[in-house]
Amino acid sequence: MAYRPTARTEATRLAHRQRLLDAARQLLSEGGYAAASISALAERAGVATGSVYNHFASKQELLAAVFRHVAGHELTAVQQAVGATRGAAEQLRTLVEVFAFRALRAPRTAWALLAEPVDPLVEAERLTYRRGYHTLAEMIIAAGIEAGELPVQNVRLSAAAVIGAISEALLGPLSPVGERTDPEPVVAEIATLCLRAVGAGGT
Amino acid sequence: MAYRPTARTEATRLAHRQRLLDAARQLLSEGGYAAASISALAERAGVATGSVYNHFASKQELLAAVFRHVAGHELTAVQQAVGATRGAAEQLRTLVEVFAFRALRAPRTAWALLAEPVDPLVEAERLTYRRGYHTLAEMIIAAGIEAGELPVQNVRLSAAAVIGAISEALLGPLSPVGERTDPEPVVAEIATLCLRAVGAGGT
Repeated sequence: MAYRPTARTEATRLAHRQRLLDAARQLLSEGGYAAASISALAERAGVATGSVYNHFASKQELLAAVFRHVAGHELTAVQQAVGATRGAAEQLRTLVEVFAFRALRAPRTAWALLAEPVDPLVEAERLTYRRGYHTLAEMIIAAGIEAGELPVQNVRLSAAAVIGAISEALLGPLSPVGERTDPEPVVAEIATLCLRAVGAGGT
Repeated sequence: MAYRPTARTEATRLAHRQRLLDAARQLLSEGGYAAASISALAERAGVATGSVYNHFASKQELLAAVFRHVAGHELTAVQQAVGATRGAAEQLRTLVEVFAFRALRAPRTAWALLAEPVDPLVEAERLTYRRGYHTLAEMIIAAGIEAGELPVQNVRLSAAAVIGAISEALLGPLSPVGERTDPEPVVAEIATLCLRAVGAGGT
């Protein structure tokens, strides 16, 4: 007779999986991918090292799952803040502010999400996740053109440029080897750059 | 007595190494990192598969060497074009145009340089190489502020934002799964975005 999981073993399995994901998120926030070794993950989660592979095919699969979880959470926060705002310029400013302040408040995690060299599986997640931001910026810019608030422009190019500008401007302030800087002026400067780029003037 | 390379064996060794680098550059331009397997590299270079490891500790080391070579060549081309131009707005426009036209003319190589998911060793090269562009943009923007051509701004943030905007705006047009687009309007739009971002108005 084949082994059939009972409700109880299934609940234990899900709990272990969740503990591994939580442990990975903590380790990521402390030392990036480099800190998330299989042994460190297992120890932090309080499970046997070998049991990691009962839940994930490889460490890369686990890191990709954590990436999706954390990056998805960030994207949702930005989307909700933008959705609560009106007007292209204010929505774009909100996008920059929520993205950048959240990143600067959790710099090690943000560095891992945006830039830390990592294997191709997580890299592929990074590209997918950036497209989520592109789509959000496209919606803002298209509505701004429609409303006559922004000049006519190639919406996809402008949206990608804005997301690229925000991410890359944050690389210096987020770099694990850089000095920590005051977030306020950094975020204000990035917002001004992005608003000017799409022709919204900025202030 | 220890083995000592003669002038002749040393010349052969260097020739093989160069053929491997050339082969890797060709394969990169055809199918990115995915196409650059050890066996494909050896076959294209006309050397035995095992001899690849006489020159490079691993495929990753070989790919990192090719990355440095190709990316360095691109950076030099942009630096020289910028150096032959005067005024911050025109220099920034030149930076965008040379970077973007060269990328759009060799889209598979540009995708490999900018975005293709790849292992951490090449990823680390990518960060280094981007810093070269940041430095160039910093010089342009700082001189523009000094000359009163650009408004006062945080030079490092603006430079990083401009390079991020160019790279990310190119992701769509360069994507191996996207449609090929006419380079002229793409490059003109990106130049306008970047010039506006730093307060140079654009046209």
